[in-house]
Amino acid sequence: MEIRVVENLLRANEAVAMQTRAVLDAAGAVAVNLIGSAGAGKTALLEATLPRLGVSAAVIEGDLQTTRDAERIGRLGTPVVQITTGKSCHLPPQLVLRALDGLDLRSARLVLIENVGNLICPAEIPLGEHFKVAVLSTAEGDDKVAKYPMLFHLADAVVINKIDLLPHVTFSMDRVRDDLRQVGSKASVFELSAKTGAGLEAWLDWLSGRARPR
Amino acid sequence: MEIRVVENLLRANEAVAMQTRAVLDAAGAVAVNLIGSAGAGKTALLEATLPRLGVSAAVIEGDLQTTRDAERIGRLGTPVVQITTGKSCHLPPQLVLRALDGLDLRSARLVLIENVGNLICPAEIPLGEHFKVAVLSTAEGDDKVAKYPMLFHLADAVVINKIDLLPHVTFSMDRVRDDLRQVGSKASVFELSAKTGAGLEAWLDWLSGRARPR
Repeated sequence: MEIRVVENLLRANEAVAMQTRAVLDAAGAVAVNLIGSAGAGKTALLEATLPRLGVSAAVIEGDLQTTRDAERIGRLGTPVVQITTGKSCHLPPQLVLRALDGLDLRSARLVLIENVGNLICPAEIPLGEHFKVAVLSTAEGDDKVAKYPMLFHLADAVVINKIDLLPHVTFSMDRVRDDLRQVGSKASVFELSAKTGAGLEAWLDWLSGRARPR
Repeated sequence: MEIRVVENLLRANEAVAMQTRAVLDAAGAVAVNLIGSAGAGKTALLEATLPRLGVSAAVIEGDLQTTRDAERIGRLGTPVVQITTGKSCHLPPQLVLRALDGLDLRSARLVLIENVGNLICPAEIPLGEHFKVAVLSTAEGDDKVAKYPMLFHLADAVVINKIDLLPHVTFSMDRVRDDLRQVGSKASVFELSAKTGAGLEAWLDWLSGRARPR
């Protein structure tokens, strides 16, 4: 009985995600779902990315509370909608679909969705995005791929952020790349520092390459 | 209808948590629920804490997959039970109650429960613990208290880990302490580095002081 409710919920989520995808496709916009732990540097990555991207973008910010991240993005002049989820540990597809109403999709070729800080639930809840990006920071340790295999299996790209901290933390890039192979990842991997700008170019190329020509 | 299912689940969780608490109390053991983001350093904190604690302890490790953290604790000679939750983003109270069967509670005065890495769901799911400890690392940024207020409101202690990284990250201890006041926290706050051992003493005093005399 309980299981049926959960299955219905999953199916309802998928139905909404398909609606979102249809709205995006009709406008020619490509959506990217950024998933990472609290503190991985998702907002900082957006702050480093948006001014250099060379492709028009809009942002949907997900958080439990506060509009701090949306304010950070808004200061860059990028159109942004904040979703506050209250207690929900992931962005619900219904609210993402509704958030699209607040964006001018005809002038945004990429819609970057920053999910709630969490490696688990956001990985399994589809939002209608075209691509998933996992954001991992070197400060979190090199065991996260093996411990959260679903996200890293599904991710189309993996950003390893905060490489400026490598001299100060215990983090083996080889171990991460080995574990990515173990979980069957086919992701492009970008080692970068949103803070210093090191390694950003390859990520910017990948991301701008996801946009469709208009 | 859906809401009723959720309410029933919450009530079922609370009932199981009360059973767990009764088992702990009958054995004279005190349980502490460690909650923090993936990569905050919860296992490293346990590794630094257990050999210096001066009070007999046992550990329950929560993870989605892998027994890596339990192996790290087992190497210290501390009794440990691993719970793997599959896709669940928090330790479910049922599995914690069952895990107690695997521990000799008469010889452990403290039961340290490392929850699944996540700042959200573990905060609202009671496990029958006597105390909640929030673990936050300086690398995650100083905005986490405001963004995850429920955990920090409920926590009896807040460990700010990785102070060895303070010279290399942007992190204001004042902002964290201000935000803790804002969310109505009455927690004891410990600034420490599990890696270097700096600041551990006050945390060890607090933690060992939670154990009951036998």
